[in-house]
Amino acid sequence: MALSDLNKVERNEAGIAAVLGVLKQRFGERLQTGQAICEQHGHTTTYIPNQAPDGVVFAESTEEVQEVVRACAEHRVPVIAFGTGTSLEGAVNAPGGGISLDTSRMNRVIEVNPQDLDCTVEPGVTRHELNDYLRDTGLFFPIDPGANASLGGMAATRASGTNAVRYGTMRENVLSLTAVMADGSVVTTGKRAKKSSAGYDLTRLIVGSEGTLGIITSLTLKLAGIPQAISGGVCPFPSVEQACEAVIATIQMGIPVARIELANALQMRALINYSKLDYPEGPCLFLEFHGSDASVAEQAESFGEIASEFGGGPFIWTSVAEERNKLWKARHDAYWASLTLRPGSRGLSTDVCVPISRLAECIAETEADIAEMGLIAPIVGHVGDGNFHTMVLMDMDNPKEIELAEEFCARLNARAQRMDGTCTGEHGIGQGKIGFIEGEIGREGVDVMRTIKAALDPYNILNPGKIWPGAGNRAS
Amino acid sequence: MALSDLNKVERNEAGIAAVLGVLKQRFGERLQTGQAICEQHGHTTTYIPNQAPDGVVFAESTEEVQEVVRACAEHRVPVIAFGTGTSLEGAVNAPGGGISLDTSRMNRVIEVNPQDLDCTVEPGVTRHELNDYLRDTGLFFPIDPGANASLGGMAATRASGTNAVRYGTMRENVLSLTAVMADGSVVTTGKRAKKSSAGYDLTRLIVGSEGTLGIITSLTLKLAGIPQAISGGVCPFPSVEQACEAVIATIQMGIPVARIELANALQMRALINYSKLDYPEGPCLFLEFHGSDASVAEQAESFGEIASEFGGGPFIWTSVAEERNKLWKARHDAYWASLTLRPGSRGLSTDVCVPISRLAECIAETEADIAEMGLIAPIVGHVGDGNFHTMVLMDMDNPKEIELAEEFCARLNARAQRMDGTCTGEHGIGQGKIGFIEGEIGREGVDVMRTIKAALDPYNILNPGKIWPGAGNRAS
Repeated sequence: MALSDLNKVERNEAGIAAVLGVLKQRFGERLQTGQAICEQHGHTTTYIPNQAPDGVVFAESTEEVQEVVRACAEHRVPVIAFGTGTSLEGAVNAPGGGISLDTSRMNRVIEVNPQDLDCTVEPGVTRHELNDYLRDTGLFFPIDPGANASLGGMAATRASGTNAVRYGTMRENVLSLTAVMADGSVVTTGKRAKKSSAGYDLTRLIVGSEGTLGIITSLTLKLAGIPQAISGGVCPFPSVEQACEAVIATIQMGIPVARIELANALQMRALINYSKLDYPEGPCLFLEFHGSDASVAEQAESFGEIASEFGGGPFIWTSVAEERNKLWKARHDAYWASLTLRPGSRGLSTDVCVPISRLAECIAETEADIAEMGLIAPIVGHVGDGNFHTMVLMDMDNPKEIELAEEFCARLNARAQRMDGTCTGEHGIGQGKIGFIEGEIGREGVDVMRTIKAALDPYNILNPGKIWPGAGNRAS
Repeated sequence: MALSDLNKVERNEAGIAAVLGVLKQRFGERLQTGQAICEQHGHTTTYIPNQAPDGVVFAESTEEVQEVVRACAEHRVPVIAFGTGTSLEGAVNAPGGGISLDTSRMNRVIEVNPQDLDCTVEPGVTRHELNDYLRDTGLFFPIDPGANASLGGMAATRASGTNAVRYGTMRENVLSLTAVMADGSVVTTGKRAKKSSAGYDLTRLIVGSEGTLGIITSLTLKLAGIPQAISGGVCPFPSVEQACEAVIATIQMGIPVARIELANALQMRALINYSKLDYPEGPCLFLEFHGSDASVAEQAESFGEIASEFGGGPFIWTSVAEERNKLWKARHDAYWASLTLRPGSRGLSTDVCVPISRLAECIAETEADIAEMGLIAPIVGHVGDGNFHTMVLMDMDNPKEIELAEEFCARLNARAQRMDGTCTGEHGIGQGKIGFIEGEIGREGVDVMRTIKAALDPYNILNPGKIWPGAGNRAS
């Protein structure tokens, strides 16, 4: 079945018209219905076609979110939470139209509790904004997906990034949250205790639910202390396999590595050209260690020994902030660097995650597939967790290329699942991977999700047409 | 309302008789209905009265669990998963009778993946059994509630213990699981990837659901490498407040402490007398550090400096295994040591967890309450997480004492919640804390739990009468 069929949500024209009227009266200029702004609130960051909502409300409080949700519930109209629109799998598209609920004006840091290493924020605060705010506290929020995403959106897609190997993902770093449910009720899932055994884990039910169960209106997040010392560096390897073996040994030794990122040969070529680096071509690991002065030196030395055992090196590392920043700037520019491999192209960015024992094999098979299919697709990844990304560079005017890229993705997803991994480590299912969820948790698992969704959102108004395919996704 | 009213589940006599007939035919001697064995499968570990099931089935496979659940579903009879029966809040009681599903014969370690630091086990494997099995691999499973609990039970109650400050709780350490749902379907919640964004987090929905949403039949668990070096020791403080200040500073400094446990003055007196120790009387912290030789020494030295800043010390630490084991044996004997404070008594063991900034205040108020109410109740806790336990020693023949202990607990739960904490950090709600869940997540939060429960278990057969009060808990 084509993606567009899997995602289909029927439009409720009368309901949409009615709800736009209600919201216009209530929100005035804070309801926008212009085509440009609506399209900006549909999916803009990858190749999945834009499906714009019919209107955008800029909400400023939990109570306003309640009002919007209640109006949409009354008229059976979809409501789609929107942070910064940087998700990669069509999570903010509006296949049945409806209202985009833009949370960007809910951007207050509500409180920071330095002694408890936590803070409470509104969902529109971005991760950079939070870290800027925290600058004088000695604390930071470690989760760093590529984009400067909103924290609400990061929670909704269970995002992670380069630091996850040490600090966890949004799953581990949201202590509790407040959400407006489909019936307009407001639920706060817990207090600020670091752990709790008090009933169902509603926090983690909503984290990763992609706006389909509730709209997050505040989050209490764990923070980490800025380490006393940081060291880092780049280490070349003769092959991806050897790099992966070094990763496994590093993790098994219990070296508390903060970041361990792989770039394959093609990705390195792109990075070197784009950022004018004098790194060696060929596969490399980028590493970072956090701790005391003594411990980051010890970690770097231990890794260096492991690397040389597996044929890698030399591992040049430094504790000098400027040099490290240059290194990570280059790593974070991978997206832009990759695009230069094929000027004028657009990237299909995908991610899978496998047990690290299968990582080398999974990357090798994927590289072979890329070569065989004649694609240009660099690989970069958070390999300490077994997570890697491929970006297929496509000419969007050539439908055959898009089809080929989708076929490549389908094979990659199935490969990861066959190796006991997941079709998405951190991007989410959204629309793009809707055909693969059943391959991962079976029909029975999807049925449990559907049952929960139907019970909590009987009119299917919250972000319909996402996560799993089929009739359950149609707004009624 | 009295606890017995909050927990009430009506008996379905005809259904129970019918299901016992069906199960007798199918399981023969593996269905037991004798009074002694049934009472052993009701609640035995604290003061909450025993409510025995009508029969106990010793299941040996997922398929057998399915058969039992389907029979119970057909006849609308409660089915209560049972591991080792060491939970503390009445989680395995059978207020409406029914079938106890004993998983102790499902005790195989299915696989260990040393490279991936994970393993898959059946639910009846206990934590000691797993660690014995892992002995030659260089790996261990770090979660250590007091008892030698089954891993299925630990997942069901979201257990933790002394290592949680470093290694997390069952929430962080179950990668995925297989469960038999109320309709008899088998759901596997995920694969072995370290992280995933593929739809709702069904793993964490079932972890902590106390057997009310599904019966766990296998678990994939994260493992940790046995550290190269371990150091540890005991540090006295002039007051609980000063000890708590030292804990906060230690966590804020980012010292990756593996264990940091507080015993108050009364608890220390009990430990010293019971284990014949030459530790000072007065509040103490017990600590352990994991890492390389250099790093555990560095951590211990850093903590020693912090302790003396807050008036504590001397901090005597060692890397000698024998001495450390003696220390932790004494700590783990706290339960038995406490009972000697009042021979012939029984303990009401309760736990709360607060943000660590409120820990000193919460313990101080609790100690004042204990004194004012004339109770004997030592305090011990996993203070790195803000989690502490109190055990009220009661004469079970004196109803007034039980009432007083329950009143004390109610005040303690409310105090923790008022300080932005939880009424249970690791024991679960079960029956004992059923009156406090609404104080923590509000009626709206409880309603979400009820809605999920009703959708996934419409006949309310899975461990009814637990987690929240009221009609929703009655088997129909």
